[in-house]
Amino acid sequence: MVEPYSLSLAEMIARIRQKKLSPLTLMESVLKRIDSVDPLIQAWVTVDRKGILKEARIRRDEISRGQTRGLLHGIPIGVKDIFYTAGMKTTAGSKVMEDFVPSYDSAAVQRLKKAGAIVLGKTATTEFAHADPAPTRNPWNQEHTPGGSSSGSAAAVATCMCPAALGSQTGGSVLRPAAYCGVVGLKPTYGRVSRYGVFPFSWTLDHVGFFTRSVADAAILLGVLAGYDPQDPSSSKEPVPNYIQLGRPGRKRLCIGLVRAFYGEKSERQVWSHTEKIMAKLEKAGARIAEVEMPPSFAAAQDAHRTIMRVEGAAFHEKLFEQHQEKYRPKLRELVQIGMLIPGVDYLRAQTIKRLFRREMEPVMQKYDCLLTPSTSSPAPGGLASTGNPWFQVPWSLSGLPTIHLPSGLSEEGLPLGIQLIGGTFEEGKLLAIARWCEKVLQFSLFPQVG
Amino acid sequence: MVEPYSLSLAEMIARIRQKKLSPLTLMESVLKRIDSVDPLIQAWVTVDRKGILKEARIRRDEISRGQTRGLLHGIPIGVKDIFYTAGMKTTAGSKVMEDFVPSYDSAAVQRLKKAGAIVLGKTATTEFAHADPAPTRNPWNQEHTPGGSSSGSAAAVATCMCPAALGSQTGGSVLRPAAYCGVVGLKPTYGRVSRYGVFPFSWTLDHVGFFTRSVADAAILLGVLAGYDPQDPSSSKEPVPNYIQLGRPGRKRLCIGLVRAFYGEKSERQVWSHTEKIMAKLEKAGARIAEVEMPPSFAAAQDAHRTIMRVEGAAFHEKLFEQHQEKYRPKLRELVQIGMLIPGVDYLRAQTIKRLFRREMEPVMQKYDCLLTPSTSSPAPGGLASTGNPWFQVPWSLSGLPTIHLPSGLSEEGLPLGIQLIGGTFEEGKLLAIARWCEKVLQFSLFPQVG
Repeated sequence: MVEPYSLSLAEMIARIRQKKLSPLTLMESVLKRIDSVDPLIQAWVTVDRKGILKEARIRRDEISRGQTRGLLHGIPIGVKDIFYTAGMKTTAGSKVMEDFVPSYDSAAVQRLKKAGAIVLGKTATTEFAHADPAPTRNPWNQEHTPGGSSSGSAAAVATCMCPAALGSQTGGSVLRPAAYCGVVGLKPTYGRVSRYGVFPFSWTLDHVGFFTRSVADAAILLGVLAGYDPQDPSSSKEPVPNYIQLGRPGRKRLCIGLVRAFYGEKSERQVWSHTEKIMAKLEKAGARIAEVEMPPSFAAAQDAHRTIMRVEGAAFHEKLFEQHQEKYRPKLRELVQIGMLIPGVDYLRAQTIKRLFRREMEPVMQKYDCLLTPSTSSPAPGGLASTGNPWFQVPWSLSGLPTIHLPSGLSEEGLPLGIQLIGGTFEEGKLLAIARWCEKVLQFSLFPQVG
Repeated sequence: MVEPYSLSLAEMIARIRQKKLSPLTLMESVLKRIDSVDPLIQAWVTVDRKGILKEARIRRDEISRGQTRGLLHGIPIGVKDIFYTAGMKTTAGSKVMEDFVPSYDSAAVQRLKKAGAIVLGKTATTEFAHADPAPTRNPWNQEHTPGGSSSGSAAAVATCMCPAALGSQTGGSVLRPAAYCGVVGLKPTYGRVSRYGVFPFSWTLDHVGFFTRSVADAAILLGVLAGYDPQDPSSSKEPVPNYIQLGRPGRKRLCIGLVRAFYGEKSERQVWSHTEKIMAKLEKAGARIAEVEMPPSFAAAQDAHRTIMRVEGAAFHEKLFEQHQEKYRPKLRELVQIGMLIPGVDYLRAQTIKRLFRREMEPVMQKYDCLLTPSTSSPAPGGLASTGNPWFQVPWSLSGLPTIHLPSGLSEEGLPLGIQLIGGTFEEGKLLAIARWCEKVLQFSLFPQVG
């Protein structure tokens, strides 16, 4: 018999609805999985066993009375430890916040709970979602980084400790750990999901995103999380379609734009040749592949992103840093110290480049159903001192365009490889449909053997 | 017989409609007035006599055929020389731009022309709308400043060289020259009038505004200028009411909030005692007067404003300044040089204070129909080396709230005094109605004897 913990989100939902699986049984299975796997992986910083078993019992009793709270009734979900959780520690991976217990839930957690989900626990994050690593290890090889900053969420989903987990991306913090750990990672359009109650890093770049083990599961979760929130004025009033009922992707013959500029040159040899093999498979399955000409502002995207992140990061941390300098780890410390010195005119110029890049990407996105790049320049690097390089994800954090990572193979060392698909503004529905089609064509579904 | 140039905007409109006044006769009268007065006042930098007489002839012929282009058919309007005018020099009061001829009109000028107005010419501005003075002199005493940066527009309207003129305000550049020259000056809500095609100074503080000799005329002009413009993404989609048909102001008994904090302390003795006399008159006429408790962020408004203005000003001028440093006058030069050095975190903190101040002013504005302060801390100062101090207008440029200046008396030296009324966001209609009521109560209408 299949262990309940290993089911996909969609399967868990179906079995609970059909009363083939009790929320309590599921939770017990998940906790057993955590006990067996997490000592090695270290994905979790907080798991309130007593609290969640109580919640699972309530959900079980409700469903036995024919009551369900919503789509995610009784489903355990992991939450990156920068999302406020009422009554549950939220450390942001920092000594400064080690005893912080919020009095309210972040908007994303509110939505999960309203849909009936149970917050399984808080997952490890780099310090304040920057670059000082969490203790989490890569499920495929524990001497390699799982990526960051959403390290724990990606590793927990990869090892079936939960079917889905929240993360966030300012530079590359959803797509990169998704790629290194070999799971699906979605970063929706800027403004698609409320960031209310999430520790900010760089508020004009911060996105809420998440991890699942299939595209179908990502569609389910996005439907729960997406939508306007008056508590986050930057969240969008764009209507939220039904992502679960995904139709055929785009036009008759799917047109995918390959981004060779920057990506071709910066990719490890095996990464680029893998990408070319994937393109060939997609072409053979009926897609039209074309090389994309990137607009001039693309070349300025990395620098602009760094300037914005440093200045806004420093602005957010300024006071805390003054009071708790000794508790800051080296990478965030450096970011704050550099960020404090950057002139406002440089910041404004970077914001101008960001707006220009967004504008210049619009006609590009109209020419293709989606763009495609390798998700990372290499498989997960060895060592735990760095969470890897965000440069392959950075342009899309800057542009605000939605991106999804799809695992598509293994490297020579047996580490996950995958592709990053980039969609048009608020076109997550189409992006998910394309990703599902690619998932079917590529037929790659492999998870690490742990525990 | 009354000279046509001295008519109000409303009277000019009525007489042209009724064919009692030909647009050509009006234009000839206005040009004669300019010839007689402007050598002393120096309000104009460009007056294209040939062009405007031709336009006036066309308007005359149209109306004799029963055609009118719009509300302002044949009306001559002055335009501050930072508004782009297609085919007409736009120098921004700067040597850098002395030969610049735009190929298109600013949105405000487009709207004037569409309503049938004739751009009479370009009025003198301080250098790039900052603080290095224009040659314009105060119509009441030519040894005193007319205020700035919209110096020419205020002085031209005060001396009946035109019935109305466009200006702009980043710190105090509409209300202050209106006060020093003794005319009505309106700065609408941030976003109410498009800034497309206007030289920016500090784009999160810049407002288009204008000068007239009565509140009724201000209502006419606002109706022409207000409204969303896709070319200026910061312009608002808020519906534009009919400002001309102003009802009774606000609630049954008008409630006016006097701002004593800062204003009481910084006002010259005669200014504050004049303000108190005005309050007494308004109270006697039926208004309820109460002292306003200002929110904590009010105390931080001046500093926040300065930081934003310096950084955005420097960002706009950075490249031009590199190329043309020797053409910059001392005050703008200093602003750019200081602005280049201000850290981004200070800029972001200032923007945070701005947002806080806007938010904290909301409940205050709900308690009163409008606020009232003296418009300036003193009458127009002597000398032409400075355009005076913007501190009385600055909080409202930062808050984005609409303000109107109403002349209300003369100082000991015979210079204009007046009051600044502050309204709620996008409540220009109510603000104009209150101002018109005050205008009636105060019965002050005096213009300088020049020419």
